[in-house]
Order: sequence, then structure tokens, then C-alpha cells
Amino acid sequence: MPADFNVTAYDVDGQVDYNKLIERFGIKPITREIEKRMEKDAGELHFMIRRGVVFAHRDLDWLLDQYEKGNKFYLYTGLAPSGNMTIAHLVPFIFTKWLQESFGVEVYIQIPDEEKFLARHDPNLTLDKVHELSMEAALNILALGFDPSKTKIFMDTDYAGFMYKQAVRISKYITFSIAKDAYGFGNDTNVGTLFYPSMQAVPAFMKSVQEGKNIPCLIPLGVDQDVHFRVARNAIEKLGYYKPAILHAKFLPGLKGEPKMSASDPDTAIYLSDTPEVVRKKVNKAITGQQATAELQKKLGGDPEKCSVCQYYKFLFEPDDVKLEKIFEGERKGTMLAGEHKAALAKAINEFLAEHRNRKEELRGMLGSVMLKG
Amino acid sequence: MPADFNVTAYDVDGQVDYNKLIERFGIKPITREIEKRMEKDAGELHFMIRRGVVFAHRDLDWLLDQYEKGNKFYLYTGLAPSGNMTIAHLVPFIFTKWLQESFGVEVYIQIPDEEKFLARHDPNLTLDKVHELSMEAALNILALGFDPSKTKIFMDTDYAGFMYKQAVRISKYITFSIAKDAYGFGNDTNVGTLFYPSMQAVPAFMKSVQEGKNIPCLIPLGVDQDVHFRVARNAIEKLGYYKPAILHAKFLPGLKGEPKMSASDPDTAIYLSDTPEVVRKKVNKAITGQQATAELQKKLGGDPEKCSVCQYYKFLFEPDDVKLEKIFEGERKGTMLAGEHKAALAKAINEFLAEHRNRKEELRGMLGSVMLKG
Repeated sequence: MPADFNVTAYDVDGQVDYNKLIERFGIKPITREIEKRMEKDAGELHFMIRRGVVFAHRDLDWLLDQYEKGNKFYLYTGLAPSGNMTIAHLVPFIFTKWLQESFGVEVYIQIPDEEKFLARHDPNLTLDKVHELSMEAALNILALGFDPSKTKIFMDTDYAGFMYKQAVRISKYITFSIAKDAYGFGNDTNVGTLFYPSMQAVPAFMKSVQEGKNIPCLIPLGVDQDVHFRVARNAIEKLGYYKPAILHAKFLPGLKGEPKMSASDPDTAIYLSDTPEVVRKKVNKAITGQQATAELQKKLGGDPEKCSVCQYYKFLFEPDDVKLEKIFEGERKGTMLAGEHKAALAKAINEFLAEHRNRKEELRGMLGSVMLKG
Repeated sequence: MPADFNVTAYDVDGQVDYNKLIERFGIKPITREIEKRMEKDAGELHFMIRRGVVFAHRDLDWLLDQYEKGNKFYLYTGLAPSGNMTIAHLVPFIFTKWLQESFGVEVYIQIPDEEKFLARHDPNLTLDKVHELSMEAALNILALGFDPSKTKIFMDTDYAGFMYKQAVRISKYITFSIAKDAYGFGNDTNVGTLFYPSMQAVPAFMKSVQEGKNIPCLIPLGVDQDVHFRVARNAIEKLGYYKPAILHAKFLPGLKGEPKMSASDPDTAIYLSDTPEVVRKKVNKAITGQQATAELQKKLGGDPEKCSVCQYYKFLFEPDDVKLEKIFEGERKGTMLAGEHKAALAKAINEFLAEHRNRKEELRGMLGSVMLKG
């Protein structure tokens, strides 16, 4: 019997059983049939889908029907700004970028600066400070290589001239009861936090408003964010727009086997700002699925599903299935020693981070001009 | 013993006892001393103050201290848009215009279009429809003669680019509990309505934000709107701005003696759109403080405080105290007959409405350009 677990928009506890989550949330597993359609429509299948990292959906079949009829969708995803972004934050964005390229579609990226401000009691975390963090988050996202001509990125407080009016339309359909049940809000929740989910709903029908016609929307997200759209999809439909389709990603595990890498626990997380030396040290302390000694490991072998190092290759650092299988095989058969295994991952992470930092600095100067205002 | 009564932001029931209201709301009566200071600072005293139409305040003494020290305030007031504005809606604005002229200060006028939209269940009242009504409300206000060079007027959804961020700062200090207790909100209240009071708080410190220094603010309003600032003043102070001072106006009574002229009851209200003939008919049916017959009236006299006609002169249509006293005296002594009394008021109202309509049409073309956007 799997241990009990809990996944909300604000917390993940226990060992997540993703099959159970599919039932709890009322979402659908990605079937072989849907994979085939995606492969046909996109020209290829991203490794995150092949490997079940992106594992569930809402209405993806409908979205592909629309696409196949020539009714192009757009993508929407987002990220609450954080002073210490981790590589886990990048998982849905790397996948989204692939969707953008493969389907040739626009991406809308929301940075909900006010959500962070409203949720924290830290008096030093002013809106101005969050604004700074948000600009950095935007850079971290754009540096993944989104096509600038097909990408719209905005912070809520800077784009409220457009968004507030649309959020008001949504908010009329969300009572305190609905918000309380969905998010666990209570009497002590501030009214800004109560309203915020209406702002998060807006980009899911924004392009339809802007272009004056109904345009399908696909939202790739970490599965903990599904709750926002369980609430918003009904309200969006009542306004007369298509309910957005959703694609759900699993959580990148922590370095010590936690179900979700958490930005608030430095030992379990690789930050985008970590130096090569820090990355090496952290990865070196990561748990693997291997046995206690090199001798036992050679004899008994290891379990790649319990090995953080193997999982990082699977989620992010080894797109080639054949090479991944070699890594897994090495883990299982014990032909790869923990030290080498970790050194190779640390090297891959550091190469990724170095390239990402370079791209960030190239983009920094133009950021102010690309963020939507209004 | 006075009948029981109730005054909330959304409803007024029973015969309002304004002295009791002062206690209930924790506001202060306007003393003779404050009147003298206002007269000195403003150069004169508006008849609404002399007559107790504007009857109470919060921190007006502090505001006058600031003014006398050379620290000028600005004014903030507002009006929820309505398809059928009455002359009662104009009372606080006429007083505000006098404050603007006498103190030579700026006025910020908020038209909270989203509040109306969120509060009504009428599916025909779309945000676009409310936007139209708001433009009309703005015209009705500006036509009272506000100095365009010292007046800023804005609709929330059009000016949310500035306002939302500031409302978010306020909203962090207002929990669902606070909002529930202050406004009587419940589990079935929509989250837009829960957030809206934070938007209403913004203009009370907006000029301080825009100019980067603390500037006192004075808010003239109908006393039923005091609740908004009972909540917001604390939050505004926590953000480091001056608590706004408030001046409270009584309600213009209905034509049939109701404590508040209500836009939803055509028989008791004079709409700005009423034709001269309709005004005459309505005023003709108004209650007076007079006796049942002309004969009894001549013998016993009437009570101006119970006479709608006398009250309309007192609130709006006879600024001259000597002339007002003559009207009251005529009522008391029974030397003025109801028919003449009413015909004279209908004439005064119609002259006012005709002039107001002319000014509106003169301003209509420029309205789009004066409303703040952003």
C-alpha cells in the first residue's frame, strides 16, 4: 500500500502516487492513442511524454481535434517569482518550448508577482522586491530559448490595465465557498489572495478576448497547479470561451528522494544560481538507488526509479532514450559506480547552467522592452 | 423613542437618527469650533455645513491643522454608475466642488464600474453596458462645474494599470473576516466583490504614491459609504500613508418622506433625465409638512422638517439662508400654500436640470480625453 500523500497548489506532502492523483483530480492519463496523435501532429514526441514525466491531461483529445481541423491553439503557462529558482521550475517550460516549436504556436507566460507578495508574511518582500524577482524569473524562462516573435510574457501588476477587467468577469462566478473548498482558504485569508485565482484564469482566454474570436488554449503545468483550472475552467466556459486544455507534469524529485524538489530546502534543490562546485557537492550527496557499498552494488545492482541521479537524466538531462536506457541499465546491473554516475550528472547540470546563464546575460538588456505593459 | 433604523453600504432602512449614527459609526459631529476654522480657511462656509446636511467627520481637525501649516490636501470622492441617476447622487459632489474652489485643491473622482457589475445578477448588465453608464455618470459629475485643470476622473477597469497594484498592497491587510464583519459579506459573495473595497481604498493615497510623498486626503461622502473607510483607513495607515479624513453628508429624503431618495423607486426620486412635466407631476405628489386642507394649514401651520419640499430647498435649491428661512416660515405659519410651494420647487428643479443638461452636452465631446487611462 502506498503511503498517504497530499498535493495542493501550496504544498506537496508524502510519496505522490500519480495514478491515484489522476483519480483524485479527475484528470486523464495520456494514452498510447493520444501519444500517437501528438507524434503525428507535432512531427515527433517529446521525451517527457514518452517517459511519462508529462503524464495526464484535460481535453487534450478535443484540442488535437481542433488542431487537426486547422483551428490552431496557443499555449499558456506561468511561474510565481522566487528568489531561488531551481531546475525543477524549468521542467514545464522546457516542455512548453518544445510544444511552441513543434506546433508553431504562440506562448503566453504569466508571472503572478502579486500572488507571491500576498502569500508571504515577510515584511521585506515588498511588491518592488517581488517585481525584481519577477524580472529575473522572466529572464530565466526566456533564456530557455522561446521564440521571441511568438512569446508574450507579463507580470500581473504591470499588465493589470488589460487583465483586471477580464479577472472581474471571471470573479463573478467564483464565490468564497468555491475558493475555500478548492484552495483551503479560510476566514483569515486576505481578499487579495481570494481574488488572485481570477487573475490566473485570464491568460487562458486572453487571446480570444484580444482577437475577438474563440481560440483554443493549452496549459502545460506542474500537476499541483491543476486546482486553479478545476475552478477557472467552469467560469471561462460561462463567459462563452473554450475551456482550456491542460497537460500535467510530474514533480522533479529532490536530491534526497523527496517527491518534489523544494526551493525552500537547499540540500534537496539545485538552484539556477548554484556554482559548479556547489552543484558537485549537492549531487555528490544525492541518494541513488544503489547499494551501501561498491561491492554490494556490483553484486545486487540498483533501482533507477529510486535513484535521484537516474531521475534527473530521465526528466531533463538525457533526451536520448537509448542513452537513458544505458544509464538505467548501468544502475540496475551495478556496472556504473555511484561516484562516476554522480560526477557525470554534475557535469551535465553545470554545462546546462553555464549555457543558461550565458543566454540570460545576452537577453538581459532587451527584457524591459519585451514584457507586456498596460 | 426613535424608530429603529439601519444604514449599510448597500441599504438604508427605517427613519435615520443621525445622532445615533454618529455613535454607531464612531464618527464626530461637526462642532461650532470646526465650522469656524473651515470658514476661516475656506473664506466662507457652505450652506450644507451651516445647515447640518454635512454633519459629521473623521479627522477633519487634523486635516485643517495640516492645511493651516501649509500642507495642502486633495479631495477624493466617487460614484457607482447607475442607469438612473437622481439629484440625491449630486449632493456630495456639489459640496466637493465647493471644497475644490474654496481650498484651491485637486479632486480625484472614482467611478467603480466593476462594483456595479459584480453586485448585480442581471445578465444584461455586462461590463460594456456598465462602462456606458459610467461615462454618463462621469459627465453628470463634471457638468457640475469641476475645474478641469484640478480634476482627475477615472473608471476602475480603465485605470487598473495603475490601481490594481496599489489595491493588492491594501488587500493584504483585509481578511475575509474583516470584510465579512464590515460589509455583511458571506460564503456566497463572489471574490470580485470581496476584493473590490481594496480598489475603492486606492484613490485615498493615490496622489501620495504618484508624487512620492505623503499628502493628506479628504473624502466627502454620503454617510452610508463610511464603512469602506472604517476598513481602509487602518490598511492605508499600515502602508505608511496618512489616514484620509472624511466628511459625512446626510441623505436627501425621498419625495414621499423616505429617509433616502432611492434610484430604484421612481415615485420618490427625481432623475436627472426627468422631463419638466414629469418633475412637476412628481413634486406635486410630494408630501409636505402641511395640514390636510388649505384652511387647516392657514390655521395650524406646517413642519418644515417633515416637508420634502422644504428639505429640497435646504439640501440643494436655496443657498441663501434668509430666503430659506422665509420658505420655512411660510411653511410653519401656513402663509405658503402647498400648490404654490410645490410649483416653485418644480420650477427650481427644472431650471437646474436644464442648465445641467446643457453643460453635459457641452462636455460630452471631450469626455473620452479627460478620463484617466492606464
